[in-house]
Amino acid sequence: MVAVAPGPASKKLGFKVAGEVGAELVEVESKVFPDGESYVRFTRDVEGKDLVVVQSCYPPQDKHFVELLLMVKTAKELGARRVAAVVPYLAYSRQDKRFLEGEAVSGRVLLELLGAAGVDFLVTVDIHSESILEELSYEAVNVTAMPLLARYLADLGLERPLVLSPDRRREREAGIVARELGTEHSWLEKTRDLKTGEVKTQVKELPVEGRDVVIVDDIISTGGTIANAARIVKEQGARRVVAACTHPILSPGAEERMRSAGVEIVVGTDSVESSVSLVTVASAVAEAIAARP
Amino acid sequence: MVAVAPGPASKKLGFKVAGEVGAELVEVESKVFPDGESYVRFTRDVEGKDLVVVQSCYPPQDKHFVELLLMVKTAKELGARRVAAVVPYLAYSRQDKRFLEGEAVSGRVLLELLGAAGVDFLVTVDIHSESILEELSYEAVNVTAMPLLARYLADLGLERPLVLSPDRRREREAGIVARELGTEHSWLEKTRDLKTGEVKTQVKELPVEGRDVVIVDDIISTGGTIANAARIVKEQGARRVVAACTHPILSPGAEERMRSAGVEIVVGTDSVESSVSLVTVASAVAEAIAARP
Repeated sequence: MVAVAPGPASKKLGFKVAGEVGAELVEVESKVFPDGESYVRFTRDVEGKDLVVVQSCYPPQDKHFVELLLMVKTAKELGARRVAAVVPYLAYSRQDKRFLEGEAVSGRVLLELLGAAGVDFLVTVDIHSESILEELSYEAVNVTAMPLLARYLADLGLERPLVLSPDRRREREAGIVARELGTEHSWLEKTRDLKTGEVKTQVKELPVEGRDVVIVDDIISTGGTIANAARIVKEQGARRVVAACTHPILSPGAEERMRSAGVEIVVGTDSVESSVSLVTVASAVAEAIAARP
Repeated sequence: MVAVAPGPASKKLGFKVAGEVGAELVEVESKVFPDGESYVRFTRDVEGKDLVVVQSCYPPQDKHFVELLLMVKTAKELGARRVAAVVPYLAYSRQDKRFLEGEAVSGRVLLELLGAAGVDFLVTVDIHSESILEELSYEAVNVTAMPLLARYLADLGLERPLVLSPDRRREREAGIVARELGTEHSWLEKTRDLKTGEVKTQVKELPVEGRDVVIVDDIISTGGTIANAARIVKEQGARRVVAACTHPILSPGAEERMRSAGVEIVVGTDSVESSVSLVTVASAVAEAIAARP
C-alpha cells in the first residue's frame, strides 16, 4: 500500500502527487521552535506502508534537507516497508566532484546520507548533473519537467518561437522544449575574435530577428544568466523574450533583473515554492513512482 | 598523529583546542554561495591522521550540522584514520524521546547520522539529556563546563554567594558551581496552594536576603527562565543577580529581558559564539580528547 507524506517544503506538490498516484495522504505536522530547530511528526500510522516522502531542498536548503532526513529516518523507525524520497530540487548537486584537493563533494555526501537515513528510492527532477546519481546504494531516477514547461509555453501564442539555452550544456533541455513546440532550438556561444581578443556572445546558427525567444535553463538563481541572454537576443532583434526553468530559486532582485533586461514572462515549476511556480511536476513524479520496479 | 580542524562555526574554539592538545592545525576553508549552500575544504592533507573536527551546532543549527556532516564524511573519504567530532552544543538534543506518536526523535536521528557520516568519537558539553548518548555505534562523552564557569564567577568578588538552578533538573550543575565557589546551592520550586490553587515559585530551603545569587542553567535561549528567576530572588531580597550558562544561544531580546529583570552579569562559554562567550571550554574538550582510549 502506497502512502504519500508531503514534507513542510512541498505541501502542495505532495498533495498533488498523492492525488495523481491515488495514494493515501499522510499529513506531516511541522513547526519551527523559537530557537530555530525543526519538528516533524507523521499524523498517521506508516507501519508496513510504502511511504513516499515529498520534500524539495530549495533554500533554506539545509533546513529542508535536515527535515527530509528526520522524516525518512523516522518513517523507517516507525516500520514503513520502503521509503521513497521525492526531492525535485536536490540541493548541492552542483558540487558533484572534487574540483580542488580537500573539498567536500557535497552533493554526493548528501545523497549517501539519504541512503544511510533509509531511502530506498529517489525521484528528482532535472538534476544539474545526472552523473551524481550513479552507484548509489539505492535506486535513483531523474525525470524532466521540460515537456510540462513546454505545454505551458504552447498556450502563450508565441510568434515563430526559437528555444535557446544560455550555453551548450543545457542544449538537450532546449531541444525537448523545441520539439514539444514544433520549432527549432539553439544555444548561446562565446567566440573570441582572434585579432582583438574580444569575447562575443551570440546565438549559434539561427537568427532571432522578429521571433519570440524562449530561454530555457535548469535553475534560475540570481537571474543574471537569463538577463544576459535576454539582452543579447534583444540586441539581435528578438521580438519578445520568455524565460522558463525547472527550479525557480530566484534570489532577491532576480525577477527585476530579468524584467529590466527585457524578459516578459518567467515561468518555473513547483519544485520550488515561488511566485513563478506556474507548472506542477506532480504528473512526472507520479509516473516515476508508478514505474518503480 | 592528531590534527585539529576548526569548522566554520567554531574557528576560535578549534584553534584553542589545537593549542591545548598540542596538535597540528588543519584550517578549513569555508564559504556560503549566493544561493545559501555551504562549501568546506580541508587546506591540508588529512590522510592517515586522527582528525578532530570542531564544530558546534548552535543556530543556524541545520547549516552548522550539514557543514559538520560534510567535514566528517570528507575527512573519511580523504583517508583520515579516525574522526572525532567536538560538538559542544548539540542541536536538537531536547528532542530525546518520542513524546507523541509519529514524531521524529530528532536528537537521536542526528547522532546516528553523524555515525553514518563516519564519526568514531564524539565530545559534547553539558548536553541537555545525557541518555541520548546511550547505545550509539561510536563512543560519545559529555563533559561539563561548570567548573570553568565557576572559576570565572570566583573572580567576581561575590558577596555570600548562593548558587541557584531555575528548577530541580539542573540541581547537579548548580551543585558543581557551588562546590567550586565554596558555598551552598539550591533551586527554585513551584508549590501549589491547596486552598487557592495559586502556583508560587520560591527558593527551596535557603534564604537569599542580602546575598549575591548566581543562577545557573545549561542553555539560555529567550532568557525568560532566567528573568523569571531573577525577579523572584530580587523580590525575596537578593543583593545582586548573576546568570551563568554553558550555551548562550540568546535569541534577540534575551539579554535585555534578563537585564531588565535585574540580572547584572550574564556569562556563557564559547560553545556558542555570542557576546557573552567569556569562558572557553577548550581545556575540558582537550582533556576528553587526551583521555580517549
